[in-house]
Amino acid sequence: MPKKVYDFNEGTGKMKDLLGGKGAGLAEMSRIGLPVPPGFTITTEACLEFQAKGGKEIDPALWEEVLEHLSKLEKRTGKKFGSVENPLLVSVRSGAPISMPGMMDTVLNLGLNDQTVEGLARLTGNPRFAYDSYRRFLTMFGNVVLGIPHDKFEHILEQYKEKYGVKLDTELSTEALKEIVQAIKEMVKKELGIDFPQDPLEQLRLAVKAVFLSWNNERAIAYRRFNKIPETLGTAVNVQMMVFGNMGSDSGTGVAFTRNPATGEKVVYGEYLLNAQGEDVVAGIRTPKPISAMKDELPETYQQFMDTCALLEKHFRDIQDIEFTVEKGKLYLLQTRSGKRTARAAVKVAVDMVNEGLITKEEAVMRVEPNQIYQLLLPHFDENDKREAVKRGDFLAKGVNASPGAATGKVVFDPDTAEELGKRGEAVILVRAETSPDDVHGMIMAKGILTARGGATSHAAVVARSIGKPCVTGCEAIKVDMERRAFTANSVTIKEGDFISIDGATGEVFRGKIKTEETKFSEEKELQTILSWADEFRRLQVWANADYPRDAQKAREFGAQGIGLCRTEHMFFEEERLPIVRKMILASSEEERKEALDKLLPIQKEDFKGIFRAMDGLPVVIRLLDPPLHEFLPSYEELLVEVTRLRLEGKDPKELEEKEKLLKAVEGMREMNPMLGLRGCRLGLVFPAINEMQTRAILTAAIEVSKEGGTALPEIMIPLVGHVNELKVVREQLEKVAEEVTKESGVKVNYKFGTMIEVPRASLTADQIATVADFFSFGTNDLTQMTFAYSRDDAEGKFLFSYLEKGILKENPFQVLDREGVGKLVKMGVELGRSTNPSLKVGICGEHGGDPSSIEFCHQVGLNYVSCSPFRVPIARLAAAQAALKEKMAKVEKIGEA
Amino acid sequence: MPKKVYDFNEGTGKMKDLLGGKGAGLAEMSRIGLPVPPGFTITTEACLEFQAKGGKEIDPALWEEVLEHLSKLEKRTGKKFGSVENPLLVSVRSGAPISMPGMMDTVLNLGLNDQTVEGLARLTGNPRFAYDSYRRFLTMFGNVVLGIPHDKFEHILEQYKEKYGVKLDTELSTEALKEIVQAIKEMVKKELGIDFPQDPLEQLRLAVKAVFLSWNNERAIAYRRFNKIPETLGTAVNVQMMVFGNMGSDSGTGVAFTRNPATGEKVVYGEYLLNAQGEDVVAGIRTPKPISAMKDELPETYQQFMDTCALLEKHFRDIQDIEFTVEKGKLYLLQTRSGKRTARAAVKVAVDMVNEGLITKEEAVMRVEPNQIYQLLLPHFDENDKREAVKRGDFLAKGVNASPGAATGKVVFDPDTAEELGKRGEAVILVRAETSPDDVHGMIMAKGILTARGGATSHAAVVARSIGKPCVTGCEAIKVDMERRAFTANSVTIKEGDFISIDGATGEVFRGKIKTEETKFSEEKELQTILSWADEFRRLQVWANADYPRDAQKAREFGAQGIGLCRTEHMFFEEERLPIVRKMILASSEEERKEALDKLLPIQKEDFKGIFRAMDGLPVVIRLLDPPLHEFLPSYEELLVEVTRLRLEGKDPKELEEKEKLLKAVEGMREMNPMLGLRGCRLGLVFPAINEMQTRAILTAAIEVSKEGGTALPEIMIPLVGHVNELKVVREQLEKVAEEVTKESGVKVNYKFGTMIEVPRASLTADQIATVADFFSFGTNDLTQMTFAYSRDDAEGKFLFSYLEKGILKENPFQVLDREGVGKLVKMGVELGRSTNPSLKVGICGEHGGDPSSIEFCHQVGLNYVSCSPFRVPIARLAAAQAALKEKMAKVEKIGEA
Repeated sequence: MPKKVYDFNEGTGKMKDLLGGKGAGLAEMSRIGLPVPPGFTITTEACLEFQAKGGKEIDPALWEEVLEHLSKLEKRTGKKFGSVENPLLVSVRSGAPISMPGMMDTVLNLGLNDQTVEGLARLTGNPRFAYDSYRRFLTMFGNVVLGIPHDKFEHILEQYKEKYGVKLDTELSTEALKEIVQAIKEMVKKELGIDFPQDPLEQLRLAVKAVFLSWNNERAIAYRRFNKIPETLGTAVNVQMMVFGNMGSDSGTGVAFTRNPATGEKVVYGEYLLNAQGEDVVAGIRTPKPISAMKDELPETYQQFMDTCALLEKHFRDIQDIEFTVEKGKLYLLQTRSGKRTARAAVKVAVDMVNEGLITKEEAVMRVEPNQIYQLLLPHFDENDKREAVKRGDFLAKGVNASPGAATGKVVFDPDTAEELGKRGEAVILVRAETSPDDVHGMIMAKGILTARGGATSHAAVVARSIGKPCVTGCEAIKVDMERRAFTANSVTIKEGDFISIDGATGEVFRGKIKTEETKFSEEKELQTILSWADEFRRLQVWANADYPRDAQKAREFGAQGIGLCRTEHMFFEEERLPIVRKMILASSEEERKEALDKLLPIQKEDFKGIFRAMDGLPVVIRLLDPPLHEFLPSYEELLVEVTRLRLEGKDPKELEEKEKLLKAVEGMREMNPMLGLRGCRLGLVFPAINEMQTRAILTAAIEVSKEGGTALPEIMIPLVGHVNELKVVREQLEKVAEEVTKESGVKVNYKFGTMIEVPRASLTADQIATVADFFSFGTNDLTQMTFAYSRDDAEGKFLFSYLEKGILKENPFQVLDREGVGKLVKMGVELGRSTNPSLKVGICGEHGGDPSSIEFCHQVGLNYVSCSPFRVPIARLAAAQAALKEKMAKVEKIGEA
Repeated sequence: MPKKVYDFNEGTGKMKDLLGGKGAGLAEMSRIGLPVPPGFTITTEACLEFQAKGGKEIDPALWEEVLEHLSKLEKRTGKKFGSVENPLLVSVRSGAPISMPGMMDTVLNLGLNDQTVEGLARLTGNPRFAYDSYRRFLTMFGNVVLGIPHDKFEHILEQYKEKYGVKLDTELSTEALKEIVQAIKEMVKKELGIDFPQDPLEQLRLAVKAVFLSWNNERAIAYRRFNKIPETLGTAVNVQMMVFGNMGSDSGTGVAFTRNPATGEKVVYGEYLLNAQGEDVVAGIRTPKPISAMKDELPETYQQFMDTCALLEKHFRDIQDIEFTVEKGKLYLLQTRSGKRTARAAVKVAVDMVNEGLITKEEAVMRVEPNQIYQLLLPHFDENDKREAVKRGDFLAKGVNASPGAATGKVVFDPDTAEELGKRGEAVILVRAETSPDDVHGMIMAKGILTARGGATSHAAVVARSIGKPCVTGCEAIKVDMERRAFTANSVTIKEGDFISIDGATGEVFRGKIKTEETKFSEEKELQTILSWADEFRRLQVWANADYPRDAQKAREFGAQGIGLCRTEHMFFEEERLPIVRKMILASSEEERKEALDKLLPIQKEDFKGIFRAMDGLPVVIRLLDPPLHEFLPSYEELLVEVTRLRLEGKDPKELEEKEKLLKAVEGMREMNPMLGLRGCRLGLVFPAINEMQTRAILTAAIEVSKEGGTALPEIMIPLVGHVNELKVVREQLEKVAEEVTKESGVKVNYKFGTMIEVPRASLTADQIATVADFFSFGTNDLTQMTFAYSRDDAEGKFLFSYLEKGILKENPFQVLDREGVGKLVKMGVELGRSTNPSLKVGICGEHGGDPSSIEFCHQVGLNYVSCSPFRVPIARLAAAQAALKEKMAKVEKIGEA
């Protein structure tokens, strides 16, 4: 049987899987000689075994091992568990391989009972300290191990503070504390019908079991599901000798980051409290002091702590998040782990550490989460304005940071109002106790969402992330009163129509307006540095989707290496053009249609020239007209109502006749399922003149730009091909146009013809299609629609969000490429396509092109480029580099194993 | 270089690919010693080489080989090509490996010129015969080789018949014929500017080239495309010594089938003409006599012919279609091939030949085209009633038999009227000069379609076959006059609203009504025999799709071994139930919904009991509710018009309020693309109560039937699953219901849970899905929709038919399973599914389950059963057997090759 318990000095920092993050950190610190209170770790394997056996009792063999280590600990510390003379007290903490809130946290001072507390009092000569420690132990153990709600303990404490007329816990006398201890024990007996466990070994056994069980509590499961943490990790349990920060003014406890986790600045950042234990620092009863104050209060310890911080950073080569305790002037480290940081800090620290020689460029690139960059580029509150708001007392509450971004708007309490005002262009924040599928239409039109209930996986959170809206959930401090159409928080009442501001990245809610600002990419020097390093490592090119010259310009600034999707239909929708487009569609003869197309030709040509100029020297993929034509026509329903009205009124027969004609034309174009109807290349096969006009406009634009001295590289993309013959016929027809244009102008431009792969059949028969295509571009939006049979227009509100909530789907497949289904088709498409056309260029232009996980997949299946919205180009550059580095590391590891 | 020319006695009947069907037949007849005029065949390879070299000139090497064979032919016959003394005359005929109308047919009497005609006259002592032969040659060669329209020749003939006051060609004198010959030569000179080729070798060279070129004429290409004949076959050319049926009353020519090709009766069936050549028999100028008349006119030859027929049938083991000529009492065979036959004859002959010991049961099963059985079971005209119509002179015209089935109805001339009357339940026949995509809505509502123009691949033909309507196209004898809204044919005028009857299987059009009748399956003893043999060979089971007990009953009569798809929604649509269904859908509370469902439960239960009783002992797959719920609600558009009206009138505020409420509810259910929206298992996940009610109804029905002593085998099918979790969740929920029902009743029934595979993702992840499914059923209708991204509702009229016309698609993928795309998903689904669940039962319930080609594919990929409409069960039984036999034959061949 493998070893299930490790002394801290038996493990190393690399044994995270077995010892958990906390255990491995303690082991590593012990190993490098830092002052860590001795203790041992029960492995994650022991936890999994416990679960596998039904999660009932601690295995006797395991318990035997625990007892052995406990006895070693006693020897090492010279103290004895349960001894009155010199009692050994321990803390018991959970620690999974991945940091995971939601599990049982900490029990301090375990080992105390009615006898040992007296021993501790005698030993320390400080009965108040002893009884305060006992009171804390009873509270923590009673709450987290025995499961009694926290407020029952609070209630007793408050009772006695009232009785003795004191405000702070620290003001309670030893006698008062003794009474409290008694009261707690009685309460526990009343609640559970048992005496509070007095046997320290029994206490330990129960605490270990409680940690094991907490792996499967609801919050932990929800957290794992949300963060895609495997169920099979398990948690370790750390048992560690207590040291006491509450032994007087030469003692204390604190937390610190080795650098500022918000800005990345290289200054130790944290706070501490003298004469305090564990939770006091975060409980907010006494105000902790900044670390810098220690320099005066405990100068020697301060210096020792600074040196330790430097040592830890150097050793772990990353920002460390440290917990420490000072017992009578002696520094003890209780925990170290990689520090969580903001996007800004992540970027700065990564760059700084390369400059300091601490890490390599590869490591720096791997250190920044691509999605964090997105946060960095999202609108956020102006720091000064936010500070002013706080000063004015406008801070209202803090909830769960469910979907990043900052937003300011008028409060509305129902989705219909949100939709109505939103459509009018007003900025609104939808505030609800919680949201349901019926609220989606309002959420879509709101600038941000705030709910009183629900966590990071609640309906509101899932939907908000899906639609990219800032969202704060579970903000329990706000009380929504639907009848009065108002909510209260922080003693302030906010009525419907009042302004609030929410920050979905921090979970903060403020009264009134706070200015938001966007990050200026060009000024983000450190981000640029990281991205330039990323560019050195990635194999995937990053292109952008842009329909207008201004977007192309922006994409290029962000580093795009081409335009992967220029949608020509957006040009058709512009106001002055729409009437011409309608004429073209409703033309009753080919001549009439030609006339309209002739008018569109020069307009389209100018559009393309602008894009070619912006992308001078880089390829531009232009997709021929794609959407069903009725999208350009007036609404059938509105026409129907109008015709009905005109018929009933009978006043204007001419108008009626005209509208009836139009209604009939629009009706003729209606489709049951336009997504699966007359669109894409099918349009070009039924109305070839549209494609021909567009091809002529593209190539003429390219020629004119090249005459200006520029280099236009048009790639003409034929959408929605499902059968090789479609592409063959369209391509032949358009090659003719290309030859004509070349002949007319006497100028030859480089052009390519290719297709979108967005119909499952195209992937399945990609070997055939590739014989007539120069390039493929995976249109994974449509491919996802067809592969899942989800209409994006319908699915999200009607069932998709509910699927995500229920965990039927783990991710929204429109955001994260579904590797098992859609991904299989992508892989097949690439492999089959290249099998008959080895020089085939393959990219992706669906929204997945900007999603890090999907980009990794695109790298793995060997795409040439991803194309995403300009805003996401930096994310894609980083994600592409990480994908390449991961592949490299996996290879190295494989060689290492071999 | 391989041999390119074969003497008839060098080849065999098995060399069809190289010698063409005709050449191989002649070779085989020569081989077995039958009297065949000597000759040789130029191979299909020579034709393909000619095409490959650009189709310009006959290769000199080939010509050399032809000349060698010609000289051998001269030696054998003692005649000489171009000799005046004893001229060798030949026929030149095309002959592809597959019988193929549309190519150049025949040139007779080649070798005649101004000199040899005199020699022939002397040799036969019959100048009239000689000049008649010359006239025929000039006409045939001038038309088919030189390309001069036939009517130019007819015109000259008519002129001279008029000049000499005769009616029949045979009445023309030698002098008259000489004048005609002269007139033809002058006309040719005028038309082409060249003298009529007099050199026999030049004649032969031109004729061979004309045959080669005719392989690629438009009609031939269209025929090949329609019949899926590969372009790579090529045609052979047969050059054969002429024998003359026009050498007096002891000579003649005729065609015959060894059995009656309409009924299958074992009697030689055909006709002949004395003193006639080739085309006279079919030209219809003289009425040919039935073969039986030969017994008196040429008794010896008759007996010889009868013996030959028997011999040929025994040798070829199939009905033969024979051309023969009698020259001065001597019988010559000019062609033999398998005879085309009606569905009825095919079945009867196959069964008879097994009984006669001529062929095996396997061969009999392979001899009948499954789709022919469909024709046999389609409605057809009552023979007596049709005979009466012919007697009354009601036969109007004959066109192309474009889509089988018989129909009677009122003539309408535009699709809108057809649609309107059709919707009112009137039987109409849509008559058009030709159809276009704008006509489809009318075609769908008509009972049949008749067009004046277009062949078997015209728009009308393609659409009619797609929608399963009888159709006659290219009926050039009818003249449509849209202004008078009438057509004329056979001197009769048919006005809009008059009745006509059309037979799409024969192409016949009649005035007035003709009774149609359906075949009674139970009375078709020979068909039953063939099918019972088929059952011995097939591995695939054949199930049926049936929604009602009466359909299930019918399916069972046709031999179905289970119900593969029982759609429960049809039950929901029935009139008395719809209001309850609507209440359920629009329920504002769960209680209200439950109340409606409780009302539906007993009704559904009775439906299922009926089906279980009909299918006693056989499995019944019942699909849970599938369509989007708005299909059960009133039309949104109609409500919109009504609400608009009520609003404008302002008279009935209560009615308005009610309708507005309903409008809002219906609007809430509307979807942009319902095909990809809230339907299938998604419904069950959003409204679990519906599924639960249905499951309870199914299992309670099964229990009650089993209490009656029956055996119900329900298989509950959950539709539209795309992710394993969908099926997992629904199944778990319904297993609970099943356990409840079992517990309540105390009776255990065998039930299964499975899913439709109809979403591409389901096929792609079938390994996952199969872990929670007992069976798969491929819903290839939807799978085709998603894989192609074709909405069936929209695609067919808007572009699919046009794709078929243009040859972009070879088949309608909704009729014939697309093996390259959809088929790949089916194969993947089967293999992946069985990889994790080896006992998985797999079937297909899309319409493809009744299509022979698709059934073959289902056999190949190892499905357990196909399920199709009851009517198609016999077709499927036969097709499944053929698939199995083909597989067996391929295996045998492979072993033979090894």
